[in-house]
Amino acid sequence: MPAGMPSTPTTRRELDLDSDVVSLTAALCDIPSVSGAEGELADAVERALGRLPHLRVVRDGNTVVARTELGRPERVVLAGHLDTVPLTDPPNLPTQRRAGELWGRGTVDMKGGVAVQLRLAAELAEPNRDLTYLFYDCEEVEAARNGLARLARNAPELLEADFAVLLEPTDGGIEGGCKGTLRVEVATVGVAAHSARPWNGRNAIHAAAPVLQRLADYQPRTATVDGLDYHEALNAVGIRGGIAGNVIPDACVVTVNYRFGPDRTLAEAEEHVRTLFEGYAVTVTDGAEGARPGLRLPTARSFVEALALPVTAKQGWTDVARFSALGVPAVNFGPGDPNLAHHDEERCPVEQVEQAEQSLLRWLRRAPAAAST
Amino acid sequence: MPAGMPSTPTTRRELDLDSDVVSLTAALCDIPSVSGAEGELADAVERALGRLPHLRVVRDGNTVVARTELGRPERVVLAGHLDTVPLTDPPNLPTQRRAGELWGRGTVDMKGGVAVQLRLAAELAEPNRDLTYLFYDCEEVEAARNGLARLARNAPELLEADFAVLLEPTDGGIEGGCKGTLRVEVATVGVAAHSARPWNGRNAIHAAAPVLQRLADYQPRTATVDGLDYHEALNAVGIRGGIAGNVIPDACVVTVNYRFGPDRTLAEAEEHVRTLFEGYAVTVTDGAEGARPGLRLPTARSFVEALALPVTAKQGWTDVARFSALGVPAVNFGPGDPNLAHHDEERCPVEQVEQAEQSLLRWLRRAPAAAST
Repeated sequence: MPAGMPSTPTTRRELDLDSDVVSLTAALCDIPSVSGAEGELADAVERALGRLPHLRVVRDGNTVVARTELGRPERVVLAGHLDTVPLTDPPNLPTQRRAGELWGRGTVDMKGGVAVQLRLAAELAEPNRDLTYLFYDCEEVEAARNGLARLARNAPELLEADFAVLLEPTDGGIEGGCKGTLRVEVATVGVAAHSARPWNGRNAIHAAAPVLQRLADYQPRTATVDGLDYHEALNAVGIRGGIAGNVIPDACVVTVNYRFGPDRTLAEAEEHVRTLFEGYAVTVTDGAEGARPGLRLPTARSFVEALALPVTAKQGWTDVARFSALGVPAVNFGPGDPNLAHHDEERCPVEQVEQAEQSLLRWLRRAPAAAST
Repeated sequence: MPAGMPSTPTTRRELDLDSDVVSLTAALCDIPSVSGAEGELADAVERALGRLPHLRVVRDGNTVVARTELGRPERVVLAGHLDTVPLTDPPNLPTQRRAGELWGRGTVDMKGGVAVQLRLAAELAEPNRDLTYLFYDCEEVEAARNGLARLARNAPELLEADFAVLLEPTDGGIEGGCKGTLRVEVATVGVAAHSARPWNGRNAIHAAAPVLQRLADYQPRTATVDGLDYHEALNAVGIRGGIAGNVIPDACVVTVNYRFGPDRTLAEAEEHVRTLFEGYAVTVTDGAEGARPGLRLPTARSFVEALALPVTAKQGWTDVARFSALGVPAVNFGPGDPNLAHHDEERCPVEQVEQAEQSLLRWLRRAPAAAST
């Protein structure tokens, strides 16, 4: 077989959790797991964790949960998704290591984070806090298929915790909470007529001019929560109108996306948008609340102090909001530049993977009391 | 066979040009001739005209031309199209006569006019002007199939004349010339970005606000030509933009239709629109010049004087513009309310068909000299 070609698995591939975290990242990437096809990887993860006597392992579809049950006063979730977006053509796998970077699908989003989770699972037989390792499927596709959401429905007790770290790529920093998102359609109504005799009609596209102007003039608020700045945003993300080239249009619909600070509920966000577009028909199409960073809570403070890394606000919506909705404050912290996620040239500095592993080991090994002084 | 059902033609149907004009209208409607299927009707028209010794008949596809060749100093074209839009379901044929109206497909657009043409052809063996009767196909479909346009390419000499009357429905009045039409796309350009981080992009839909505002604020000109008022119009007829619900759109395109007075050329209309949207990318998609009414020319004046009917400007684009482009001034004059054309309840007052016949007979029988005093 030519060098560099991915092999067709004739025997099942095993993950060696005692290998270094970079080799483990490569091994995880080299078992492709595009959303919906995570089975082989979930099997390998389940088997590897099953060999560790200090963990109880539970499987839900292609989601794998492993927990310590040491009776510690605090419990922390370390979560990551197993799936990736599709490979490039030709495929950007197997991984390649070049000049301090690991290249290939999943190296950023987010098998580096998963490798860190698995290394901690192997190393920390007696962590200072009880730990729940969560490996879930279908994060990169529609919310209805999301493995974390499914687990929250099927076995919410497995997600109970004081704090959660989602190991999504943050370029090595800590990103707290996330903004919420609301999508609405703002519609104008007109009367159709022949475009040679527009006085018999009323132009719904012309009537949308003030809607676009309000969007262009809008001054977004910055919400500061737990010391982090969430920059709100209100944008048209779509517009459609028109019947035919010789007809005055009787309808125009502007799709608006409002990204709002985690200090606002979804209902408050809707109220804000309805007030802004008073006089127009506003229909909500979908929305999700944001997440407060919860950085004033003791566990979160110990995390930030132990890692001694910069903390910024997460601007995009992420699965930390699902933890937030379950009452678990959560942050994003993981190796890789998020701007390279889903990218054809997806690649991650190996140093970031190693540093993430060391930072978390340090936090979870030291005495909890030290953090709360 | 049940009463009221259309018969399947087992023998060819003949048109009796000596019958009254309303019966002839019904007979024409009862030979269905949806665009592209005018063959049977064109055959019947050709045979009926071929029996009149004072006419020379020429066939071009499903277009029939019949001419007097009396050596008169003036020649007038009387033109109408043979095709109709599709029938309703269940079919609005055969025609029915109820309370002074003839109901059914084609009664308005425009077999009443065609019946008037055929009656004149039969009655006027010695008209005061040479006459060209033109019956053409495919007016109701795309311009590339239009029988009048095809004849202008194949045998332009058959269309030479001093004046043309297009017997399209005008509710019994005279409509002169027509406005031109120009369609352009006005585009804005942005930079795509995630909608949670719009500061990395530039919103092309927001950038379209001034385009819509200019359209909403636009004060259209009224062009007065030969005493007729052509009300210009500038309208968005379509708008599109947006990539996905979480992406700042990088492009927005507004389709604009400019209906312009016949005193402007197509090039001038384009110049006007480009000036109005200076600073934006403007792409012309299609256009057609309008037609001056030519009502100051002697033949047109004699027509208006003889008919003694109100004259108004035609606002929509019609085939009079094709005559205008050939150097033949043209007006629309025919029975039926144009608002009922293509309508499910298409119907025409029989009185209007009779009056159109009488008016034209009067004009074409009286001495031409009388008109020019």
